[in-house]
Amino acid sequence: MRLNQAYSGNVFICSSDDYEASRAVIYGMPMDYTVSFRPGSRFGPGRIREASVGLEEYSPYLDRSIVDLAYFDAGDLLLPFGNAAKSLDIIAEFVRGVLADGKIPVGLGGEHLVSWPVIQEVYKKYPDLAILHFDAHTDLREEYEGEPLSHSTPLRKAAELMGPSNIYQFGIRSGSKEDWTYAQQSGIHFHPFEVAEPLKQELPSLAGRPVYVTIDIDVLDPSAAPGTGTTEAGGITTKELLEAIHAIARSGVNVVGFDLVEVAPIYDPTEMTPIVASKMIREMLLGFVK
Amino acid sequence: MRLNQAYSGNVFICSSDDYEASRAVIYGMPMDYTVSFRPGSRFGPGRIREASVGLEEYSPYLDRSIVDLAYFDAGDLLLPFGNAAKSLDIIAEFVRGVLADGKIPVGLGGEHLVSWPVIQEVYKKYPDLAILHFDAHTDLREEYEGEPLSHSTPLRKAAELMGPSNIYQFGIRSGSKEDWTYAQQSGIHFHPFEVAEPLKQELPSLAGRPVYVTIDIDVLDPSAAPGTGTTEAGGITTKELLEAIHAIARSGVNVVGFDLVEVAPIYDPTEMTPIVASKMIREMLLGFVK
Amino acid sequence: MRLNQAYSGNVFICSSDDYEASRAVIYGMPMDYTVSFRPGSRFGPGRIREASVGLEEYSPYLDRSIVDLAYFDAGDLLLPFGNAAKSLDIIAEFVRGVLADGKIPVGLGGEHLVSWPVIQEVYKKYPDLAILHFDAHTDLREEYEGEPLSHSTPLRKAAELMGPSNIYQFGIRSGSKEDWTYAQQSGIHFHPFEVAEPLKQELPSLAGRPVYVTIDIDVLDPSAAPGTGTTEAGGITTKELLEAIHAIARSGVNVVGFDLVEVAPIYDPTEMTPIVASKMIREMLLGFVK
Amino acid sequence: MRLNQAYSGNVFICSSDDYEASRAVIYGMPMDYTVSFRPGSRFGPGRIREASVGLEEYSPYLDRSIVDLAYFDAGDLLLPFGNAAKSLDIIAEFVRGVLADGKIPVGLGGEHLVSWPVIQEVYKKYPDLAILHFDAHTDLREEYEGEPLSHSTPLRKAAELMGPSNIYQFGIRSGSKEDWTYAQQSGIHFHPFEVAEPLKQELPSLAGRPVYVTIDIDVLDPSAAPGTGTTEAGGITTKELLEAIHAIARSGVNVVGFDLVEVAPIYDPTEMTPIVASKMIREMLLGFVK
Amino acid sequence: MRLNQAYSGNVFICSSDDYEASRAVIYGMPMDYTVSFRPGSRFGPGRIREASVGLEEYSPYLDRSIVDLAYFDAGDLLLPFGNAAKSLDIIAEFVRGVLADGKIPVGLGGEHLVSWPVIQEVYKKYPDLAILHFDAHTDLREEYEGEPLSHSTPLRKAAELMGPSNIYQFGIRSGSKEDWTYAQQSGIHFHPFEVAEPLKQELPSLAGRPVYVTIDIDVLDPSAAPGTGTTEAGGITTKELLEAIHAIARSGVNVVGFDLVEVAPIYDPTEMTPIVASKMIREMLLGFVK
Amino acid sequence: MRLNQAYSGNVFICSSDDYEASRAVIYGMPMDYTVSFRPGSRFGPGRIREASVGLEEYSPYLDRSIVDLAYFDAGDLLLPFGNAAKSLDIIAEFVRGVLADGKIPVGLGGEHLVSWPVIQEVYKKYPDLAILHFDAHTDLREEYEGEPLSHSTPLRKAAELMGPSNIYQFGIRSGSKEDWTYAQQSGIHFHPFEVAEPLKQELPSLAGRPVYVTIDIDVLDPSAAPGTGTTEAGGITTKELLEAIHAIARSGVNVVGFDLVEVAPIYDPTEMTPIVASKMIREMLLGFVK
Repeated sequence: MRLNQAYSGNVFICSSDDYEASRAVIYGMPMDYTVSFRPGSRFGPGRIREASVGLEEYSPYLDRSIVDLAYFDAGDLLLPFGNAAKSLDIIAEFVRGVLADGKIPVGLGGEHLVSWPVIQEVYKKYPDLAILHFDAHTDLREEYEGEPLSHSTPLRKAAELMGPSNIYQFGIRSGSKEDWTYAQQSGIHFHPFEVAEPLKQELPSLAGRPVYVTIDIDVLDPSAAPGTGTTEAGGITTKELLEAIHAIARSGVNVVGFDLVEVAPIYDPTEMTPIVASKMIREMLLGFVK
Repeated sequence: MRLNQAYSGNVFICSSDDYEASRAVIYGMPMDYTVSFRPGSRFGPGRIREASVGLEEYSPYLDRSIVDLAYFDAGDLLLPFGNAAKSLDIIAEFVRGVLADGKIPVGLGGEHLVSWPVIQEVYKKYPDLAILHFDAHTDLREEYEGEPLSHSTPLRKAAELMGPSNIYQFGIRSGSKEDWTYAQQSGIHFHPFEVAEPLKQELPSLAGRPVYVTIDIDVLDPSAAPGTGTTEAGGITTKELLEAIHAIARSGVNVVGFDLVEVAPIYDPTEMTPIVASKMIREMLLGFVK
Repeated sequence: MRLNQAYSGNVFICSSDDYEASRAVIYGMPMDYTVSFRPGSRFGPGRIREASVGLEEYSPYLDRSIVDLAYFDAGDLLLPFGNAAKSLDIIAEFVRGVLADGKIPVGLGGEHLVSWPVIQEVYKKYPDLAILHFDAHTDLREEYEGEPLSHSTPLRKAAELMGPSNIYQFGIRSGSKEDWTYAQQSGIHFHPFEVAEPLKQELPSLAGRPVYVTIDIDVLDPSAAPGTGTTEAGGITTKELLEAIHAIARSGVNVVGFDLVEVAPIYDPTEMTPIVASKMIREMLLGFVK
Repeated sequence: MRLNQAYSGNVFICSSDDYEASRAVIYGMPMDYTVSFRPGSRFGPGRIREASVGLEEYSPYLDRSIVDLAYFDAGDLLLPFGNAAKSLDIIAEFVRGVLADGKIPVGLGGEHLVSWPVIQEVYKKYPDLAILHFDAHTDLREEYEGEPLSHSTPLRKAAELMGPSNIYQFGIRSGSKEDWTYAQQSGIHFHPFEVAEPLKQELPSLAGRPVYVTIDIDVLDPSAAPGTGTTEAGGITTKELLEAIHAIARSGVNVVGFDLVEVAPIYDPTEMTPIVASKMIREMLLGFVK
Repeated sequence: MRLNQAYSGNVFICSSDDYEASRAVIYGMPMDYTVSFRPGSRFGPGRIREASVGLEEYSPYLDRSIVDLAYFDAGDLLLPFGNAAKSLDIIAEFVRGVLADGKIPVGLGGEHLVSWPVIQEVYKKYPDLAILHFDAHTDLREEYEGEPLSHSTPLRKAAELMGPSNIYQFGIRSGSKEDWTYAQQSGIHFHPFEVAEPLKQELPSLAGRPVYVTIDIDVLDPSAAPGTGTTEAGGITTKELLEAIHAIARSGVNVVGFDLVEVAPIYDPTEMTPIVASKMIREMLLGFVK
Repeated sequence: MRLNQAYSGNVFICSSDDYEASRAVIYGMPMDYTVSFRPGSRFGPGRIREASVGLEEYSPYLDRSIVDLAYFDAGDLLLPFGNAAKSLDIIAEFVRGVLADGKIPVGLGGEHLVSWPVIQEVYKKYPDLAILHFDAHTDLREEYEGEPLSHSTPLRKAAELMGPSNIYQFGIRSGSKEDWTYAQQSGIHFHPFEVAEPLKQELPSLAGRPVYVTIDIDVLDPSAAPGTGTTEAGGITTKELLEAIHAIARSGVNVVGFDLVEVAPIYDPTEMTPIVASKMIREMLLGFVK
C-alpha cells in the first residue's frame, strides 16, 4: 500500500513531500518550559499549520505563489519535556542537518529560547551573519531567576556570540533597566517602539549580507496577537509587520534562515493569532526563499 | 389582543413597524453553505441585531439620529438549507419587491454570495449602477472547485454583468493569481491593500450616479473583526472603515442599496465583530438613506 | 540527513512510524460539508491528536499500555473540499488498502458520513459484520434536503446494505418521525436513550462476530462534549461511554474497525471535547486491538 | 408587497404566524436589572430562539412533532431598561391578554423576577393553581438588600399570594438560612437537592389541577448550564430535567402556563446552555400543550 | 506569627505594604449597577491586579521603575451591592482620607460613575482643578432613564460643579444629540474622535495646574479593549493611549489623582483588556507620581 | 486614616480580618512550574476568591453559615518563580506558623506539588495522620523526567514519609503502570474510579484520627471542571464530590488541614471551575472546621 499521503492540516499548506527537492524546511519546536508568565506556546506550531489551510496560495504583495516554491514540513521535533538543555541540543542537531543540506531552516516556536541553538548553527555556517529581531521584549537578560537558559536571554547570548553590532532589534517596548541599558550601550542596532522607519534605514547597509530573521509574534499589538504569553500594549499592526517582511524581501539581503515564535493558542479563542502567523510564514517563504 | 409588539433584540434598534412609511428595509440572509474555510455567517444577521441594542441613536459623525429615519426590519429571509440556487432566487424576489416599492434594500449576510442576486436586481432598476466593494478578497473567481455559485465568485459575476469598469474595489489583499490578474487587467477600478486614499480619488467621478455598496466585514483587520470565516492580516481599522462610509455619505453619490456580510459570530466570543458591524449599519443608514 | 523524525503533536501519541509492523492504522477524515447546523468537524482529527499528548500511556481500566501496541498514524486524508462523493471514494480506497494489509482501520472524523465508505469496505471483507453505533441521532434518513450523501444518512445506507438486523444502535435521542419509525420497525436492534444496560444485553449474542464500532461524540451529553455540531440534551456521561467501550473490549466480539466522529473544536474553547475523544481512542486501541 | 416573511432565526423554530390559531404564545422577557452576581440574562430569549434552529421537529420521548402544534412567537417584550416595576407591569399586561385569549403563555427569561407578574395573572384566572418550581435557589427572600422586587424574591411573593401549600419546589440547593427555614416551615412542598423522586411522589396528588411550571436553568449542574448568572455545584443533569418534564407531561396535571429563565449566554461560549434550553422548550410545548 | 505577607496576585505588582511611606494609593471600586448594556466591570480591578504580575517593573518609555516608587494597594472598597448612593459615599470617604494624607488616589473601576465622588473630593482640595477625560462616550447626560446617578452622567456633574471650561474631553465618539450639543456649546474643551493632536495642543495651557486624569478603557478601539461594557468602533490604539499618557507626564501639569475604569473581563477571554489596562496603570504611576 | 478595609473580591468571602480569633487560615500557593501538559494553576487561588463573592453564606447541606465561623485569608504566598525547592520551603514555613498557632491550614493551589510541604508539616504535628486524597491521577511517581519535585510525585513522597497504609486514595483513573502497581501493592488504601462507596466504607475506621484532605479538582469529570491542566474523562460529578465532603464532615474524623488544587482558569472561559471550587471550599470550611 502506498503510504505517503498528502496530509491536510498536519503540515503547512502546499508543503512538498520531497525533502531533497525542497529549498526550505519548516520545523516546529514545541517548547515552553522556561516562560515566566503565561505558558502554552508548545501548541503554536501545530495551530499555525492548522490555520494555514485557510490561506490562498498566491501572495499579491509579492506576486508569487507557494505552489511555485518547494518546501518541506518536517513536523515538530520531539523534545524531552522540561529538559531545556537537551531540547536545545536536538534543535541544534536538526538545524545543522538542514544547513548542511543547503536548505533554509524555517522554525515555528515555541518560546523564544528555541532561536538560540538555531542562531548558533546558522552563525557557524555564515560568520558574517546579521540578525533582524522583531519583538516586544529585549530578550537580552544575562539570566532569568538565576537560569541562563531562559526565554528572556536568547538575544543576549547571540549578542555575546556574534558581537552586538550584528544584532538589529525593532519594535522593542519592554525589558528590565539592565537590558535596556545594555541594548543602548552595547552597540546593538537598537530601535525601540518602532519598526518600519528604522528598518528601512538599516536595510541598505545590510545588502548582500547573510541575515537571520526572528519574529516574536508579540511584536504585534495585543489587539492583533492576543494568543501569546506576554502581550504588550503599544505594538504594531499586522499591516506594519507585513510591510517589514516585504521591505526585507526587497532589500537585497540574503535571508539564510528565519523563525516565528511565541504563538500560544490557548489565550486566543478567536484563533486570529495562528491565522495571522500563518500568513506571515507564507510571506516570508515567498519573500525570503528565492 | 393587540399583537404588534415592539420587539427588542429581534430587530435592528429603532426599526419602524410601518413598512409603508419606511425609506429602507433591513433583511437578513442567513446563508453560508458555499464557504470554504470556516462557516458560521448564517448567524450573523441575528447577532448584528442583538448587538444593535447597545448603540446610541445619534451619530455624532453625521449629526443625525436613527429616530429621525424610518426603516423597517423584515427579519431573516427563510432560505432552504444547502440549496444555494433556490436561496438566491428567494433573495432576488424579496429585493425586487423592496425596489419596486421604492425603498432601499439593506442586506445583512451571510456569505458574500448573497450579494449577487441583490446586485442583479438593483442593476435592472439602475442600468448605470456602480458598485463600491470593500473586502479582503477579490471574490472574482469564475468558479470555486467547479462550482460557479460560490462565496468566491459574486464580484466576477457582477463584473461580467455590468462591465468591469463599473466595479470599484478597495482593501483587497487576497486572491488567486488568476483573480488578481483579472482585477488588474479587466478594467475594474482595483485598489488593493488601501481604502481611504483611493476611495477619495474615485468618489468625485461617481457623483450623481446610483451606487451599490457592499462591505465584507473581513476588509477589517483580524484584530477588529475576528468573527468572520476567512480573516486576513493586513486589514484596515474600524476608524478607516467609518471614514470610508462617511466619505461616501458626503460624496454626492446616490446610494440605492447596500449590504454588510460575512459576520460569523462563533469565532468571536468577545462579540466585538457584531458590535462593530451594527455601528457600521447605523452609519450607513444615516449616511446613505436621505 | 535522517528525516524520519518522531513528531509530537502531529500524530496520535506513541504512534509507531513502522507501518508494516502496525496492527492498527489511524487516519483522519477532515470533511464536514454536508452538515446542517454547526460545521467545523474538519478540524476534529488534528485536535484529537494534539490533545493526545496529555494522555498517560497506560490504561488502568484495561491494564495495558499503548507502548506495547504498534499502531501507525497516517495523518489526515487529503479530501477535495466540497466534493462529498469524491471524498468518500478517497476514504474507501484508503481503507481498502488498510484492510488488504490485514490491519484495523481507526478513523477520526469529520462528519458522520465518513463512516459510510468505511463500513462498505469492512463489510466486503467481513460479510457477517455487525455494527455497534453510539450516537444522539439515528442517522437513518433516506436523504436530507434531497441529498442522499448527508451526515444524516450513513446508518440508513448501512442498514440497507447489510440488513437492519445487523445494526445495533445505542443512546439515540433525536431523529425525525420517519427515522424513528424505521428504527423501530425495520429490525434494527434499536436502543434509544440508554447505552450501558442494552449494550450488556446485546453483547453476548455477538460473541465471536466481526464488529465495526462507530461513535459519534454527541452520544455524550452537551456537558461532556460541547465541541460538536449538533449537541443534544439527555446524553450519557464520559464514565458511561468508557464503560461501554470496556464492555465491548471484554465481550469476545472481534472488533475489525472503529471510528470516532463529529468533534468540532471551535465550539469548545475549554478543549474538553478533543481531550475526552483522545482518551476514548486510547481505550479503544487498547481494548479492541489485540 | 407581501411582508409576512417566515423568519428563520428570529422566532422559535416552527412557530406559526397565525396568532389566532395558536394554542400557546412564546414571549421573551429580556430583563436582568435586579441580579446580584453575574448579569446577562436579558440576551437569553434571543439566543434560545437562535439555538432552536438546530432542533429536530420530532420528539422521540413524546412521539409528537412541533409541526403538529400551533404556537406563536410574539418576540421579546419591550421593557424599559432599569425600571423593574414598569417592566413587570408590561409583562402582566401581555400575559393577561394571552390568557384572555385562551392561550398558554410560554415565557423566556430574563431573570427569575419576570415570573412574578405571570404567576399573578395565571392565579387570577386559575384560583386553584399550583406551582412547580425547579431551581438551584429558593427565591424565597422577602427582600434583597432592601428591595422587594429582586430576582431572589418571586417565589416568596407567590407563596404569600397563593398560600405556601400550593408551591412545590425541587432541586433547591442554595439560599439564606431565613429562606431555608421558611421553605421548611411555611408549608411549601419543599424538596431540596433532588428532583426526580420527589416529583414522582407529588404528581399524583396534583392530577387535574391547573399548574404553572417555572424552570430556572440553574437547576442544572454548572456542567450542563454554565451560561447562567449564579450557577451552583450539585445540580441535576439534562437527562434528569428531561425526565421531570416528561413526568409532568404524563401526570394528568393541567399545565396552564410555563417559563424557562436565567439563560445568560455571555458566560457560555460553547452555546450549550441555550441549546439545552431550546430542547427543554420543545419538550414542554409538546408535553404540556395538548 | 508574622502575617504581613507580600501577596502576589492580590495587589498591583510591586505595591509597598507601607501605607505611610507611599506616595500613591491604588483602590478598586467594584461597582457596575447603573450600566445599561453589558455589566461586569465590578470584576475589573481584581483582574487588572492579576494581569499586573506579567509586567516588567521598568518603563523604557519613561526610564523609571516601579520599584523606585512607593505606592500602596488598598484593595477593593467594600461597596453595598445595588446601592449606588451609598457606594459613592464610601468612595468619597476613602478618597478624602487618601487626599488628607497627602497621597495621590489611583482608582480602578468599575463603571465610570465611580469617578464622580472622587472628582468632588479632589476638587475640594484643588479648586483650580482641570479634568482630562479620555472616553468613547460623552458621559454628559443629565440623567439616564430618570436616574441622575448613572454611568452616563459623571462628566456632566463634574462640568456643573467645576465649570465646563475646566473639562477637557478626548476621543469621544458616542453620545446622545443632547450630550453632543452640550459638549459643543457649554464651553467644555471638547475634542471628539481624536486624542493625540488635540491633547498636545491643550497641554501647554495647563502647565502647573492640578489635573485629574480619568480614562475609560473604551476610548480604545474594540480591537484593543473588547473587555468593556459598551465598546465603540472608531477608537484609538494602545500606542496612541500610551502616547497620551506620556504627553501628560512630560507636560508640566500636576496630576493629583487619576483612574482607569470600565474593564469588564467577562467579555474578553483573551484577557488582553486587563493586560493592557495594567500597563497603562504602570505608565501613569511612573509618569504622574513624582 | 483607617486602612483595614474589608476587601471584596480579593479575599475569600466573609473572611475575618482578625487572624488571632480565626480558627482556619486560607492561603494561596500560586505555583505551576512543574506541570507537564497545560500550566496555569498559578492563577487558581485568585479566581477561587473572586468566584466566592457569588456564594450564599449559608450551607443548607450542613445547616451552618460561614458568618458563624472565623477564618482568615492570608492571600497568596509570594513564591519565587521557577524555583520549586524554595517555593516549597516558603509554603512549609508558612504552614508551620499556622499550625503552631493552633489553626487549620486551608490551601488553594496551584499545582499538586504544593501539598507536599504542607503534609510534611501537618505530619510533624500529628504523627498518626491519615491522608484522604481525591484525584484523577495517582500522583505516585518516584520522579518525573528525572525530577523528584514534580506535580506527579507528592503522594508518593507522602506514602514514603508516613507509610502507605495511612494514605487513602479515591477516584483515581490515570497513572503509569508503575504508579498503579505501587498503588495496589504498597498497602495504600487505593480506590480507583469510584469515590462515594469506598469512602463510606473507609471512614468508620478513621473516626477520631487526625486527617488531612487534599482534593485535586480534576477528580471531577471534564464536564464539571474543564479549567484544570490535565482533565480526565470518567470523573465524578459535583454532586458526588459534595457528598464526599459531607460524608467526611459527618464521620467523626478530625480534619486538621485541607487543600484544593489544580484550578487553572484559562482553560475555562465559562468560569464554572473556580465557581465550583469556591463552593467546595465553603462546604469544607463549614464541615471540617468545628
